[in-house]
Parts: sequence; structure tokens; C-alpha cells
Amino acid sequence: SPDAELKRQVDETIDLLGSSQQPDGYLNTHFTTVRPKERWTNLRDAHELYCAGHLIEAAVAYFQATGERKLLEIMCRYVDYIDSVLGDAPEKNRGYCGHPEIELALVRLYHATGEQRYLNLAKFFIDERGQEPNYFVAEAVARGTDPKRNWVGLEYYQAHKPVRQQTDAEGHSVRQLYLLAGMIDVAAETTDLELLAACKAVFHSAANRRMYITGGVGSERRAERFTFDYDLPNETAYAETCAAISLVFAAHRLLQIEPDRQYADVMERALYNGVISGVSLVGDRFFYGNPLTVHHETLNQPPQSHVTAARQEWFGCACCPPNLARLLGSLGQYVYSTADDALYVHLYTSGAAELSIGEHRVRIAQKTNYPWDEKVKLTITSEAPAEFSVALRIPGWCDGAAIKVNGHKVRVKKLHRGYAIITRTWSPGDRITLKLPMPPTRVKTNPKSRNNIGKVALTAGPIVYCLEQIDNGENLAAIALPRNAKLRVQHRRKLLGGVNVIRAKAKRIEQEDFGDDLYRPQKSRRQKPKRCNITAVPYCVWGNREVGEMRVWLNE
Amino acid sequence: SPDAELKRQVDETIDLLGSSQQPDGYLNTHFTTVRPKERWTNLRDAHELYCAGHLIEAAVAYFQATGERKLLEIMCRYVDYIDSVLGDAPEKNRGYCGHPEIELALVRLYHATGEQRYLNLAKFFIDERGQEPNYFVAEAVARGTDPKRNWVGLEYYQAHKPVRQQTDAEGHSVRQLYLLAGMIDVAAETTDLELLAACKAVFHSAANRRMYITGGVGSERRAERFTFDYDLPNETAYAETCAAISLVFAAHRLLQIEPDRQYADVMERALYNGVISGVSLVGDRFFYGNPLTVHHETLNQPPQSHVTAARQEWFGCACCPPNLARLLGSLGQYVYSTADDALYVHLYTSGAAELSIGEHRVRIAQKTNYPWDEKVKLTITSEAPAEFSVALRIPGWCDGAAIKVNGHKVRVKKLHRGYAIITRTWSPGDRITLKLPMPPTRVKTNPKSRNNIGKVALTAGPIVYCLEQIDNGENLAAIALPRNAKLRVQHRRKLLGGVNVIRAKAKRIEQEDFGDDLYRPQKSRRQKPKRCNITAVPYCVWGNREVGEMRVWLNE
Repeated sequence: SPDAELKRQVDETIDLLGSSQQPDGYLNTHFTTVRPKERWTNLRDAHELYCAGHLIEAAVAYFQATGERKLLEIMCRYVDYIDSVLGDAPEKNRGYCGHPEIELALVRLYHATGEQRYLNLAKFFIDERGQEPNYFVAEAVARGTDPKRNWVGLEYYQAHKPVRQQTDAEGHSVRQLYLLAGMIDVAAETTDLELLAACKAVFHSAANRRMYITGGVGSERRAERFTFDYDLPNETAYAETCAAISLVFAAHRLLQIEPDRQYADVMERALYNGVISGVSLVGDRFFYGNPLTVHHETLNQPPQSHVTAARQEWFGCACCPPNLARLLGSLGQYVYSTADDALYVHLYTSGAAELSIGEHRVRIAQKTNYPWDEKVKLTITSEAPAEFSVALRIPGWCDGAAIKVNGHKVRVKKLHRGYAIITRTWSPGDRITLKLPMPPTRVKTNPKSRNNIGKVALTAGPIVYCLEQIDNGENLAAIALPRNAKLRVQHRRKLLGGVNVIRAKAKRIEQEDFGDDLYRPQKSRRQKPKRCNITAVPYCVWGNREVGEMRVWLNE
Repeated sequence: SPDAELKRQVDETIDLLGSSQQPDGYLNTHFTTVRPKERWTNLRDAHELYCAGHLIEAAVAYFQATGERKLLEIMCRYVDYIDSVLGDAPEKNRGYCGHPEIELALVRLYHATGEQRYLNLAKFFIDERGQEPNYFVAEAVARGTDPKRNWVGLEYYQAHKPVRQQTDAEGHSVRQLYLLAGMIDVAAETTDLELLAACKAVFHSAANRRMYITGGVGSERRAERFTFDYDLPNETAYAETCAAISLVFAAHRLLQIEPDRQYADVMERALYNGVISGVSLVGDRFFYGNPLTVHHETLNQPPQSHVTAARQEWFGCACCPPNLARLLGSLGQYVYSTADDALYVHLYTSGAAELSIGEHRVRIAQKTNYPWDEKVKLTITSEAPAEFSVALRIPGWCDGAAIKVNGHKVRVKKLHRGYAIITRTWSPGDRITLKLPMPPTRVKTNPKSRNNIGKVALTAGPIVYCLEQIDNGENLAAIALPRNAKLRVQHRRKLLGGVNVIRAKAKRIEQEDFGDDLYRPQKSRRQKPKRCNITAVPYCVWGNREVGEMRVWLNE
């Protein structure tokens, strides 16, 4: 959607950036004006290369959207300068950034320009990370500080050992997953199977042992970090919006290398839950942290770091709001991918795309009210009849998917890594109808997760549900869902922009009034439980009515 | 037990202290040698009066134990000097200590010396606390620092408002409870009912809304502080040993003013659980924090502040070990108290005491294996037959207490504030037999405590039980105790110094192996639960065998 006024603003900003660029190509106004003698002296903490990385991404995006090269050329000059200072030649500094980001940006710049040096620099940053002698230790000593007086440790920066030896998602979660995205890009471009194996191990660690049911990651607020396997506290979760977004980045990149449902499932889980929870329905307020439980008393407590009980208009460290805007603006890139003879459908959402499959130019359109409705209609249109495969992702949460082509049932004998592959000669206007049953479902945690064992979460399709105080009263911890409770889905057109809710009959635990007592012997006779009706709403839209309690994992 | 060698060591130390005293009476070597110009410039943080307070207590204790006055006189000189500098006269500094302690010490010094000025100074420190303009704010400004850059807030020091207006236990838990002990002392000495009302409100807040079942207090590690009502996280509990000890101090003082079981019950709960858990059975290792849940993965994490998974030999900030030693050395003071015509028995433990009741000198002896046995035998011996009341505390946890005097059943129609009062003419050698049934009991939390609602704790008499990994295997969170599980008590003579354990048949939740999955839909058919036998040991002796998981509140 070209917009002349917006372009004028951007171009003006680009001119300003260009006028701030130093003769040698360097571009970071903080280091040219506030700390002019400190360039490249604190790569660990100062986000110097991280800022360059985001600006590189902006330059590539602007070039790809408009064809304008001015910012791209500014950033190429800057990167050429960086490449002359940092790297593995004897005269260069062997540094890399404390907050990975530039690695994936350099690969994007390589794609936009074809300049091999940019890919090489990304590879250097990745391969050098965590090598001995450790750069961050040497750099701290050179600054005259004690490298041991850094409470977060080298794991925080994923610099505790070479990345190829890293098998777990560690440290600051956004750093880890930006690094992972860059690692996957470099592995793909250089066909580096050893590096790819490390990528898969780290992704697996994050997604299968350290991820909230919402797709949020980062269990500890203090260092915004991964902790240990199955450690998923609900109330003190960090689960930064940017971390869920960067999990999408990593999953999407692995999906391009290897179309496998496991990656698309994680991508979908994060997108529909822990990513989009980060923004209000109106689009003007944001969560930085995305806890899975909010208790009414904790609402009155002083906010902890970036975790608040209500979405905020902005943050001093404002990474999440623009990251959300960028992701939503580029969401179309995540829906499909192609191989020489196949069109992969990873996500289901209304829209249309034109893609090249081998020599064929193909238009694909989806019409659906997913995830509130289980039917998806797809239309495939090529200029002439053409043979290729359409690979439909059958989500891991789905039992009993049914497919029709032009009204005729298609029996798919075996999914291929979670995809139903339909190979035929497609005629213009061929219709696929996909039905993905999404009944309300009780989900349990791996019993190794002490935080949620014995509890239950409600889902329907990709959507994770939660209870809110406004629908269910105070003290959600007192609500217990009986094992045999019938779950009913209702569509509420006017609620929260139009969502499905899950309703059930539940109970309130221990209805006895304890009065002033804190502890009491359990009554020997069974108390008559107090029944209550509960209404669960999608987690992604919680906190859009009034501030109150919220809870994903319910007592049984 | 006089010990010449110990006395020689103490006297040598006293001489050293005396030689460090300044001509004006001041005595704090840090401020005379390291920071000589900074006396009384940071009462908020520097613990200057706090250190004086502990030394005053030492002086009084040594005087009372030995009759030696040397240290007492040193400290009187120091307090005389403090009294000349701090107070409400126009020429004095209106300061008070950031860490209360000196208040209760000054009342002890008043008792030992009869010097009214010491009581007055204690009263000044208490009444001035939290008044406007706030001393700590003014002091920070005078030091050239920004008083707002103190992340803990004035509540941390109980200086956010005048103490008579404080109704909740707030801030650093040891500070709050030392202050409370001093407040009670001053209220008692000055018959200040307004102050006493504030004391009762704060005690009630701590004991009825902010206390762990172990008698531990302080729910937050970072500021070692009280948080909000019913906020009692188990795994991240602070529950400092010193905080439980200071809760005993406060409860004991209120009990002297008003013999009421509610105070003795709290005192007993803390003593038998969250206090004594602070020291190993051998007596050589200590817990600073006393969590109610330790999970095996958290054992491998870096220790958080003073909270460790195993008792330590010592701490840099070593308040807890000597505080425990002092409490155990003075435990006899907590067992009985007297009124003009009554002898109160607050605690049950073998031993003997001589007390004055009115004009009668009375010897009381107890013989019991309490709390491992429910029978207590008491012998009352006065020189001649004498009429007075013996008031026996019937603990709040006890149903069906039975009393016999000289073998004859005594029916007590109504307890007086939780005490069974037996008034008669006691003849030398009269015997009381008290039976306090202590069956194994399932205890529930007030439903307002989100942390433990739906869970169950096991107790027997005053003892709180826990599961340890060594007896019950890994992942204690997976153990669920059925509602109808039969609890059996067994005495284990050779276990942990000889304790009762509680055994039961329980189940392990979700025995299905999730393999690599983090989340799965709940199976519709009910799984066959895996049965297990559990053995619960007293919380106070956990961690004396090998490092492993521990859990007080169990899933049901």
C-alpha cells in the first residue's frame, strides 16, 4: 500500500541517518556523540552491533518494499566498515555482539545484495562466539572491569561455549532465539550440517522442554532467561513478547529447510497465543512479559521489571511493540512455502498469494474463519493445468482431519512429516476443502513439570484458553474443573472482537469460610462442593476488558 | 554451668571492647577506624544502633548469668552517650535505626539497671519511627543521595508511617518482628494501650495472614520481606530462621501480657518447625532461608541470596546461627509464666523449674516424650500446701485433651483463652497427668492462599511433616494423597535422632510417559493410577541425610 506521506517521512529519516554516518562508514550516534572514544569497547553490553543489525533489516525491508537503495547503501557502507574492523584476519578484532541480531540481518543483506562478505561476516560472528580465550572476558579486562562481577554469566549471552557445542536453549531468551535464527540462516546458506544439528538441538530444547503452552519462553524475570528443563512457573513467567516472536523466526526458518509439522506447530502455537497476547485488540497497548497466571493481589504489587498486570502504552526499552508491528506486517511470509514440485500450506487464514512452483505460476486463495471454525476452503489456480503437490499441514493437535478436492473425499494414507500431500494435475479453480476438527480439549503437562502437574489447560484447535476474573469471579485458584466436566464451545460474536469461548460446570474448592484462620484440619466428612459455571476466553485476548485475575492452568 | 575457661575468654573479649570504647562512650570499631567521620550519618543502612542493641543484650545476659558488671557498665556508658546524641530534645538528632533491635535491648537494660532513661530512649525510637518529616529521607538528602533511589521503600524499615498507625506486618520480616518485640516491651512497661493495640494488629497480620504453616515468615527473597495477605509461595519462600525466632520473641512477649493460647500456639509452631529447621541435628550447619518445597532441578541452580538447598557451615552475614544458639540457650524462659495466683504452663517438655506464685515458692517438673508421645506428667511441689491455679495450655491443634490430678479425672468445663485452669490447694508432690491426643492430621489452607489451595499438609500435634526424596523418590510434585488415605504414625527410634513418621498409601499422578512431548491431550479413559507408599518426616529434621527434594504441601 504505497503511501507518499509515509515515504516522505522515511526518506527524511534516511537522509538524517546518512548525514550522521562517519567518513569511515560508522553509524551509531550514541557512540559518535555521547561516548566518542568508546567504539567497540563493550560489545558485550552496549548493543552496538545489535542496533546495526536492526538497521540493516530496515534497509533491506525498505529496499524490498520500494526498490529504494539509499538506506541499503548507507548500511552497506557501515557493514563494509564493520567487516574491516571485526573478523578473523590477524589485524582484526575477534569480537561479536552480546545481543545477537546482526547475524540474521547480515544474511538478509547478503540475500538483497549478493555480497558474499556479508554472509562470511555472519558466519564469523557465529563461529567465534564462545571460543577460548573468551572475547567478553578479554574485553571486560581491557575495560578495567572484573569479568566475574557480571552476575548473569556467559550463558546469558550464549557465549559460554562454541555454539556448535550448545545443545540447550540457555540464557536470555531473545538473544538465544535471534542467535538461533542467524545460525539456521548460515547453516542453510553454507549447507553446514554440523551447525544445523546444533540448531535443531537448541530448538528442540526450547520447544519441547522449556516452552509455555502459549508458545512463550523465558521462565525467569530477573535475567529474562531460559532456566532449566520443565521449569515453567506461571505467575512469575517472563515469556517476553519478543521471545515468542523470535521463536516464530526460528521455527519458520527450520520449516524452510525441512517441511515438518513440529516447526509449524510451534510457529502456530506462538502466533495464536503468546505472540498476539502482546498487543491489545485496539492495537495501542502492549505486554512485554506474558505471564500465565495473574492473581488479584499481585495486581497491587509494584511491577516487576517489564511484567505488568495490564498492557502499557510504551516501554523505555521498547523492543516488543515494533517487533509485533513488523511481524504482523510480514505475516504473509509465514503462510506458504514452495519446493520444486510442491506448495506447502503451513497456516490457515483467509487471503491469497501468487507463488512459483517449478515453472508454474500458481495462485492460491484461502477462505476460512479459522480458528473459530474448522473448515478451510482453498482454491488453486494456475494459468494452465499443471502437476504438482499441495502439502497441507495437519496440525499436531488435530484428530480426524478430512480433505475433499472438488467435493470428492481424498484419503491420505500417511502424513509426510505431518503434511497431507495431494499430488495431481491441478486445473484452474480446483477447490480443496479441509476440515480440521477442533473440539474443546483438556491438555496435561509432561509430569516432569512440577509447576503444572495435576492441573489442566483448555484448548480448542490452536487456541489456548484462560479464565478471567470478569467472567469467573475472584480467586481463580479456588476453581477446580472436574475430570468429567463437559466442555462446550460457543461463538460470541460481540465478545472481544468475536471469539469462541469454552464453558463448563466446575466447582469451587473448600467453600468453608476459614474466617480468621490460616490453617485448619480437613473436615472428615466431605463438604458439599459449591458448583459454578466457568467461561474460558482465548488467552491471546485476555486483559482487554478490565484489570483482573487470569489463569491458564486450572486445578482439577 | 559455670566454665572458667569460657569465662576467661569472655572477660578477655570484654577487656578488648572496653579498650576500644571512645572517651565519649561511643563503641563501634567500624566507625572509629574505617569510617571515623561518618558516625550517625546513615542510621538507615549502617546497623550502628542495631549492633549496639545486640551488645547491650550480651551485656545484660552476661550480668544476669554471672553477676559481672564490667560489660554492663561499658554498655551503660555507650547508651548514656547515645542518649545524649539521639532523642527529642531540641539539640538532639531525631534518628532511629533502620534495623530495629536496640529498642528491645534498651528495655532489657532498663530491667537490669532500673535506669528510666533507657526505657525513655526505647520509647523515643518507637514513637519517632515513621513520623514526618521522615528521618531517613532527610538523612539521605544530607548524605547527598537521592532517597527515592532506594528500591526497598520505607516500608522495608517500618518507617513509612508512625508505628501506632501500622496495622500490617510489612517490610523486612526480621526488622518488623524485632521492632514489634520492642513495641510490646515498651507498651507493657508504660501501660500504653494504644501502642499495645498496634502490636496486636501487627502480630495478627503476621500470624494469621502471612505465616507459613512452619511458623516461617517473609515470603519474598529479594527484600527478605513480608509481601501481602495469604501470599505464601513454597519454593521461593524466604522464611529466614531469624524471622521465625523473632516471631517467637513477639509471641512470648504478648503471652506475658495476656495469657492466650493464640500466642503460645504460634510460639510452639515456630519453635518445633521453622526455627529448629534452621540447624542440623549435629548442630554444626545452618539454614538461613527455610523453603517449604525444594525441587531436584532447583538444587542445581545457583543459590539465591541466602537460600540454599543444604545447610551451610556459616554465612557472611551470620545472624541466624548465633540467634539459634541464644534461643536454645534461653529456651527455659519460654515454658512457664506466673501470675499472682497462677502458674501457666505454655510448653510441654521434660525439665524442672522453681517459680514464685504470690508468696509461694513452687517447684514444677515435667516428664514427657512430647511431641512424640501425647502424655505429659507434671509434678507440683511447694514447701507447704498452697492454693493457686495451674493453667495448662490446651493447644489449638488438640481435640479431646484429658487431665487427671493424682489419678483422678478432672473435667474442665470451659477453657480460659485456651488454658485449662485447675484451682486447688496443691500438696507437695501432687501429680497432673495430661493427655494431648495428636493423631496424624490433614491440614488445609485458608482458600485465600492461592499457593496451597487444593493441597494438603500433614501434621501430628505441633509437628509439621514433609516428604523427602530419600524416602519417596524423585519428583515429589507427582505424588497425590487420596482424600481417604489412611495415615499411620510410627515411631522410628533410629531415624533422625528418633522421630515419629507418618506413612500412607498414595498415588503418582499421570503415570503415562510423555516421552519427548511437553503437552498432550488428556486421555479420555481413566488411567490406572500407580500406587506408592509415602513416608513423611518432621519438617524440622529434613535435609539431615542427603541433599534432595523436599515438599510440605502435597497434591491431593
